[in-house]
Amino acid sequence: MNFSFKGRDIISIKDFSRDEIDYICNVATSMKDLYEGKVPRPLNGEILASLFYEPSTRTRLSFESAMIKLGGNVIGFSDPTWSSAVKGENLSDSIRCIQSYCDVMVIRHKLEGSSKVASEIANVPIICGGSGTKEHPTQALLDMTTIKSEFKEIDGLKIALAGDLKYGRTVKSLAYALSLYDVELFFVSPSLLKVRSEVLKSLDDAKIKYTELENVDDIIDKVDVVYATRIQKERFPDEAEYKQVSGSYKFDVNLMKKAKEHMVLMHPLPRVDEITFEVDELPSAIYFKQAYYGVLTRMALLGLVLGKVK
Amino acid sequence: MNFSFKGRDIISIKDFSRDEIDYICNVATSMKDLYEGKVPRPLNGEILASLFYEPSTRTRLSFESAMIKLGGNVIGFSDPTWSSAVKGENLSDSIRCIQSYCDVMVIRHKLEGSSKVASEIANVPIICGGSGTKEHPTQALLDMTTIKSEFKEIDGLKIALAGDLKYGRTVKSLAYALSLYDVELFFVSPSLLKVRSEVLKSLDDAKIKYTELENVDDIIDKVDVVYATRIQKERFPDEAEYKQVSGSYKFDVNLMKKAKEHMVLMHPLPRVDEITFEVDELPSAIYFKQAYYGVLTRMALLGLVLGKVK
Amino acid sequence: MNFSFKGRDIISIKDFSRDEIDYICNVATSMKDLYEGKVPRPLNGEILASLFYEPSTRTRLSFESAMIKLGGNVIGFSDPTWSSAVKGENLSDSIRCIQSYCDVMVIRHKLEGSSKVASEIANVPIICGGSGTKEHPTQALLDMTTIKSEFKEIDGLKIALAGDLKYGRTVKSLAYALSLYDVELFFVSPSLLKVRSEVLKSLDDAKIKYTELENVDDIIDKVDVVYATRIQKERFPDEAEYKQVSGSYKFDVNLMKKAKEHMVLMHPLPRVDEITFEVDELPSAIYFKQAYYGVLTRMALLGLVLGKVK
Repeated sequence: MNFSFKGRDIISIKDFSRDEIDYICNVATSMKDLYEGKVPRPLNGEILASLFYEPSTRTRLSFESAMIKLGGNVIGFSDPTWSSAVKGENLSDSIRCIQSYCDVMVIRHKLEGSSKVASEIANVPIICGGSGTKEHPTQALLDMTTIKSEFKEIDGLKIALAGDLKYGRTVKSLAYALSLYDVELFFVSPSLLKVRSEVLKSLDDAKIKYTELENVDDIIDKVDVVYATRIQKERFPDEAEYKQVSGSYKFDVNLMKKAKEHMVLMHPLPRVDEITFEVDELPSAIYFKQAYYGVLTRMALLGLVLGKVK
Repeated sequence: MNFSFKGRDIISIKDFSRDEIDYICNVATSMKDLYEGKVPRPLNGEILASLFYEPSTRTRLSFESAMIKLGGNVIGFSDPTWSSAVKGENLSDSIRCIQSYCDVMVIRHKLEGSSKVASEIANVPIICGGSGTKEHPTQALLDMTTIKSEFKEIDGLKIALAGDLKYGRTVKSLAYALSLYDVELFFVSPSLLKVRSEVLKSLDDAKIKYTELENVDDIIDKVDVVYATRIQKERFPDEAEYKQVSGSYKFDVNLMKKAKEHMVLMHPLPRVDEITFEVDELPSAIYFKQAYYGVLTRMALLGLVLGKVK
Repeated sequence: MNFSFKGRDIISIKDFSRDEIDYICNVATSMKDLYEGKVPRPLNGEILASLFYEPSTRTRLSFESAMIKLGGNVIGFSDPTWSSAVKGENLSDSIRCIQSYCDVMVIRHKLEGSSKVASEIANVPIICGGSGTKEHPTQALLDMTTIKSEFKEIDGLKIALAGDLKYGRTVKSLAYALSLYDVELFFVSPSLLKVRSEVLKSLDDAKIKYTELENVDDIIDKVDVVYATRIQKERFPDEAEYKQVSGSYKFDVNLMKKAKEHMVLMHPLPRVDEITFEVDELPSAIYFKQAYYGVLTRMALLGLVLGKVK
C-alpha cells in the first residue's frame, strides 16, 4: 500500500490507521542507508523550525538530527524565555510569521492542543513534539518502529506497560497504537498511578485483552515486551510512600533473569532509578536503541510530510 | 543602476540613498525563486554569526532562514547569559574573535551604536539586527520591499504611521526611508506618544508633507497604507489612561470597512491588542506577509554584502 | 609520519606525543584553503553534537564554525537548564542517546573527568571542550598551532606564562605540551597564584629548564612568547590586594616596548584588564589571531577523528 503523507500534520496518534502506522514503520526502517550517509540526501535547503517552548534534549536533538540527515537544515529555539513570548506575543501570531521562515515545524508547548491550533493556522506541516500531558505521537511511532524491528510482527505479542500509567503521556499514545493490533496488554502500576479509564475504555472498544496489576514480578516471565516508565516522586503525598512503591517497579538483573529469553525492556527515557545500570549491559535492554529508531522514524515523518521520501 | 554592496555594513537606514533602497527592494523581489528553491543556491559553506544579546524570535529566525535559503549556515546565540558575557568580556573583544568564525554577522544589542562599533572593528560585514531604541534598518528595508511589492510605486502614496510613534524604533527608520520618496505622511498617536521633533525636522528638510493627529478614524478613508505599531502599557502613568487611549487605536473590522479598497494594513509585530483577530482574515491585512518579505529582503542583504547576489 | 586519528577521543593533552602534536599542528595549517572555501569540503552531512553544560562563546562557536567549514552540521545546546538535565537525567544516559544523533561530540561540563566518562561510553569520538578546572586540550593544541605558525620551530624558544597559573586550566595543558619540546619556561605570577607543584614536577621529569618569578618586567626583554592569562578578582581575600597584584601583570604599550622585536603576546581570552586596548594595535599582539588558529585546529581535529582529513 502507498499513502500520500505530503503536507500532512502529525498531531495525534489517533489520526493514524493501522495501515498508516505499518507504512511509517516500514519507511523508518528503510531510512537506515540514508542515516549512514550511503545514499544521496533527498532534501536540499528545506528548513525545519524546531520550536521548543518546553525543555527537551532527546526529542529536539532527535528531530534536528533527522532533518540534517535528510539533507535539510534547522532553525528554532529551545528556550522561550529569550523569544518574543516575553513580549506577550500569542502562539498563533508566532506560527503565522514563522511559517514564512520554514518548510515544516515541530512544536513542543505546555498547552493542550497547541499543535492542533498551530496546524489549523499554518500553511506548512506541523509535527507535535509533545503537547501538554496528553500527546507525544512521534514517541509512540518510534516505539512501534522499535517493536516492529525487534519482532517483525506486532500481532500476537504480550506487552506490559509499567510505572506511571496515569500521568505519562507516552503510555497513552502507545496503548492506543497497540490497540490497532492483535496484542494482549498488562498494565503494571501502583494504585495511585493506574491507567486512566478512558484508555481502558478505548481498549474495550477495540476488543483488546488486558490485565491491571501492581507487581511487575507477577508478569515478567509471561511477556515479550516490557515498556517501563519513570515514576515521579512529586506524584506522591509523602516520600516514604514513594520509596515503598517505587521499589516494586525497579528493574534489576535478578528481575530480568526471570524474563523470557527474547523479552525486550523499553523505556522512553529519561529514567531516574527504575532501571539499574547493570541492566544496561543485557541484550534485552533496548532503551538506548530506541533513540536510534527515533531518528529513523523522524526522518521518515519529515521526509513524508515534505513529500520527499516514499 | 548597479551597486556594489560587497563588504558593506548595514547599520542605519540613513546610510542608504533612494536609489540604493530601490535596488535592494528589487533584489529582494528577485529572491522569490531562490526562496522556493527553484534556482541553485549561491552560497557554499559561508557562515552567518547570529548574535542576539536581546530577545528576538522573528528577526533572528528570519535572518537564519534567509542565510540557509542562500545556501549558507548559521552559528550564534540567542541568550547572552550563557555566553562569555557572563565572564565580563566586552563586546569589542567578542567581535574580534567571532569574526574568525564567520563571513558576516548580525547583531542585536541593547546599547545604542553597538553595531556601529562592531562595524568599525570587524573585518566582515556587520548587519544591525536592532540596536537600542533607535535603529532597526532591516525592518525599514523589509517594510519598503512590502510597500513596493504591493503598490509598484511608492511615489504618490499617502501613508499613516499609527500608535507609539515616540518609542517605536521601526517608525523612525521607516519615516526616514519614506522621506526619500514623494509621499504624504500622517502621524496618528496619543499626545503622550507623538513622533519626536527630530523626525519631523528631517521631513521638513526633505519637504515632505505631513499631518499629526490623534484619531485613526479621521484618516482611515484617505490613506493607501496604515502602518500600526504596538502601544505599550508601561508607557502610561496609570492603566485607566492606557485603556482610554489604546481604544482609539484599535483596528477592528468596522474601522477597516471605512478604508479605501486597496488600502493595506501593516504592523512590525508582535501586536498585543491593537488589531483584532477578525481583521487578520481581510485581504488588506498584510502584516503576516511582511514576514515573508522579511526573508526575501534579508536574503538580498546577506547575498549583497557577501558579494554573491546581484 | 602519518597517524590514524580516526575514531580517537580528544580528552587530555597528556594523551599526545610530540610527534602527534606536530602532526595535528601541520594538518591545522593545511586547513587554510578549506577555511577560505577554496577546496571541496570533505564532510557530507556528518553531525557534530555540541554539548555545552557550561557557558562558552568562543570555544563553542569555534567548534561549530570548524564543523561547518568541513562541510558538516551541528546540533546541540548551550544552556543545560533547558535540557533534560532538569528532569534529573545523568550524563551517561544523555550520551548514550545523543550518540545516535551524531557522528562526533564536543562536551564541556563542570565535572572533572566528564569527557573521559563520556568517551568510555560512547561509540562516536568525544572531544573535551573544557572539563572542570583541569583540562582544555583543544586550547593547548590551538596554542601550539599558533606558536608553530609564528616561529616555525618550537625548540629553542623562551616562553613566559603569566597571570593566574594556579587555577587557569589553559596554563596546565600548555605547559605539558611545551614540555615535549626543548624550551625554557618562565612562570610569572603573584605568590597566591603560583603554578602548582605537580606541573613543576612534570617539567623536572622532562628536564625542562624553568624559573618562577613575580614581575613580568623582569623577563619581558628575554622571551620569545608571553602567554598572559586572566587574574580573577574572586581569587583574592580582599579587593585592595587584588588591585595591587593585578597592576604588576598589566601589559601596556610601555611594557611591550621593552620586549624583543619578534616577541608575541598571546592570551586565551576573555581578558578583563590585564592587557590595555592600545596593545591590541601592536603586531606582537596575536591573541585575536589565536581565534583563527583555533578554527583551523578544530577543523583538523574534527576531520581527523572522523577519518575524513589527513
